[in-house]
Amino acid sequence: MRDLFKYIDAHAGDYIATLQRLCRQPSVAAQGVSMVETAAMVEGLLTGLGAKPCLVDTRGGYPIVYGELGGKVDKTLGFYNHYDVQPAEPLDEWESDPWAAEIRDGRIWARGVADNKGNLAARVAAVDAWQKVNGELPLNLKFIVEGEEEIGSPHIHNFAEDHPDLCQADAYIWEFGGKDIAGRPQIHLGLKGICYVELRAKGARMDWHSSVATSVPNPAWRLVWALATLKDEREHVLIPGFYDKVVSPGDADLEAVAKLPDTEAQDLANLGIDRFLQGLTGLELKKRNLFQPTCTISGFESGYTGKGAKTVLPGKAMAKLDMRLVPNQDPFEIYDLLRKHLDATGFDDIETELLSPGFPARTPLDAPIAQVVIDSYRQLSVKEPVVVPTSPGSGPWYQLCGQFGIDACTAGVGHAKSQAHAPNENIYVDDFITGIKQICLIMDGFSRA
Amino acid sequence: MRDLFKYIDAHAGDYIATLQRLCRQPSVAAQGVSMVETAAMVEGLLTGLGAKPCLVDTRGGYPIVYGELGGKVDKTLGFYNHYDVQPAEPLDEWESDPWAAEIRDGRIWARGVADNKGNLAARVAAVDAWQKVNGELPLNLKFIVEGEEEIGSPHIHNFAEDHPDLCQADAYIWEFGGKDIAGRPQIHLGLKGICYVELRAKGARMDWHSSVATSVPNPAWRLVWALATLKDEREHVLIPGFYDKVVSPGDADLEAVAKLPDTEAQDLANLGIDRFLQGLTGLELKKRNLFQPTCTISGFESGYTGKGAKTVLPGKAMAKLDMRLVPNQDPFEIYDLLRKHLDATGFDDIETELLSPGFPARTPLDAPIAQVVIDSYRQLSVKEPVVVPTSPGSGPWYQLCGQFGIDACTAGVGHAKSQAHAPNENIYVDDFITGIKQICLIMDGFSRA
Repeated sequence: MRDLFKYIDAHAGDYIATLQRLCRQPSVAAQGVSMVETAAMVEGLLTGLGAKPCLVDTRGGYPIVYGELGGKVDKTLGFYNHYDVQPAEPLDEWESDPWAAEIRDGRIWARGVADNKGNLAARVAAVDAWQKVNGELPLNLKFIVEGEEEIGSPHIHNFAEDHPDLCQADAYIWEFGGKDIAGRPQIHLGLKGICYVELRAKGARMDWHSSVATSVPNPAWRLVWALATLKDEREHVLIPGFYDKVVSPGDADLEAVAKLPDTEAQDLANLGIDRFLQGLTGLELKKRNLFQPTCTISGFESGYTGKGAKTVLPGKAMAKLDMRLVPNQDPFEIYDLLRKHLDATGFDDIETELLSPGFPARTPLDAPIAQVVIDSYRQLSVKEPVVVPTSPGSGPWYQLCGQFGIDACTAGVGHAKSQAHAPNENIYVDDFITGIKQICLIMDGFSRA
Repeated sequence: MRDLFKYIDAHAGDYIATLQRLCRQPSVAAQGVSMVETAAMVEGLLTGLGAKPCLVDTRGGYPIVYGELGGKVDKTLGFYNHYDVQPAEPLDEWESDPWAAEIRDGRIWARGVADNKGNLAARVAAVDAWQKVNGELPLNLKFIVEGEEEIGSPHIHNFAEDHPDLCQADAYIWEFGGKDIAGRPQIHLGLKGICYVELRAKGARMDWHSSVATSVPNPAWRLVWALATLKDEREHVLIPGFYDKVVSPGDADLEAVAKLPDTEAQDLANLGIDRFLQGLTGLELKKRNLFQPTCTISGFESGYTGKGAKTVLPGKAMAKLDMRLVPNQDPFEIYDLLRKHLDATGFDDIETELLSPGFPARTPLDAPIAQVVIDSYRQLSVKEPVVVPTSPGSGPWYQLCGQFGIDACTAGVGHAKSQAHAPNENIYVDDFITGIKQICLIMDGFSRA
């Protein structure tokens, strides 16, 4: 490993430049921005490794970039990543151009650098360095790089259905990962599911003078009233059946959660709030974060939202609802429950559209890949890693791994203030270089696991 | 009058050009756009009439353009107008540039052409024509042209307090007016009051990855829950005390309302809706429109509102609440009731700001100015005017007239599809020319009333 690490350090500038190139290429799936160009760029990176990649059709979505490489032992490690990123808005809150990938104060600042072009670039760099220094890879590799993770991976189940063979691996390294707020590396062994729904209400054919409000329906009120029936102020979701399939965490999970470090003060300071919802703290807070589903208004728009007073009656209203699901909730069932609830409560005028269904998924705490990742952190002499039984985030873990019984574990170059999904997304340059080395350790470790 | 009307017809092109010039000058008080320039332009128009106008300071708001002209008899008619207009947004719904004042299909299309630069220009044109043809005016005139009507006239009470002498008149012609959906001229003898409030909720210091929604407060939910406590689905306002001071309409009002023509089918078609709120129809609908207060969400914004799925927990949420008040509701009291209600129901975290308070006001149905305006329509041989006891709209009628016991009546060049406050605002060129003639008839009629 010493030669390998030396090579990585010597070529750090090249690897950083590749990451910057990737970040300077916008790729916003939600807005359809430059997706084809970015897929081609990723294909080019895999071609550079000798992977003979291809763009796999997903029946209606952006293609998945797929590439495989053979290695010394007949064991296969999959890398799941995505080439799409979140929208950069609100643009005026960025301190530098989200597509400039500026390096400032030891960090690279760009939309998508943490989530997850930094991880993709680190994995490509690790393979490149290994090949240059050691020649043959220690095990088989698969790169599965999708283009729709940030919009809820709506077509990856088509890919898994059409090409189950391409999905097969002995384990996956998941797309994200990094350090917690105290600088301790975290690994996650699961994801929540997601049911993301857009709700729309309509009134007059356009925004109208609000003097007609005595007699003309107001879609903003309709949506407010409908949303207010979905969750109460005690954070209890009121959709009948919502909690029916929720599985309580097992003993091993509870044991792992009890060991999680206390980061409340730092998290509160980072978030800029005084207390967590309902004053939650300690074990209850951790359990809630990992094992309870959510029902979140992610967006709401209606009428006049500019400066000052404009006296209009809105013609339409729109809300986005983001529900994170835990085992064994089913996003399609949850969507049906929501629709039935709206119809039953007199809100059949509210249109709903399921934008991105995703199942929850878990990997056992004692899976071999988890131990390999933990060991990789120990070998890097960074802080002792924190094992988080599952993540409060979401992704197609079930579609790609869970449904095939394949284990997966996170490993990545982010940190607690990476601001994924928010303005001023960033990673530390040092973490990126360390992340390249870590992937080398993981490939080596898993080949012998 | 024949010579006067002939002169107006002969100079119609000049008067239309002046109106276009006024409309091409944006003047959005809500956004602080070009207000000083527009005030100067209006001052120029009054100077052209020999009025020696001045800009009157309003202690913190845009100035009021004030001008007066002497006439044959010692009787004074006031013209209340405003030089500000609504914001032009949403811009992509306009068929021509809102600031181009394009003439198309016999109409002038521009933000503010109906509300109310068309009326202001018609009044200026009428005075000009009278002076050119007859010399001395038949009575004294006052022009009071404010710059903040569209943001709720927040400073006109300062003007009235500082300069009660300038407000004095025997009657006012109010700023708006026009035809109903069947082409019948309408006159209005009052206005609702208004209490326009912006509500703001805050959560984390910025939009965050929505995976933290288990434990981080969501300002969009806070605002939805708070709003849902303000009005129920039966349109009943739930703020304690809201209805306490509402005065029932008197017999004369009810008689006038009973005479109002049925325009329901046309109104529904124009609005693009199937039925009015709660299936209201007939007399109940008319009474509701004129004599009941409203509580309207005019705008709501939070989180991600673009295309597709962005999984964020909003850092802030904002709503605009437009409450139209009837006699004897007091906007300051209503604001206090709202604030107390929010505090009492656990929503003391919701910030509120009163943007534009306005009192309701009425003029008696038998006021002399009303008869003069009715007669002016009869002399113009247009359809028999419809007398509406009050308007569902708002404005500073109380501050300028009501508190001094001065009568006022509407008269203007709009029509039912003028789309005031909406995209594609317009008036008919013919109505503008007729409106100039009407003002001549009103000046003449009121001088002899």
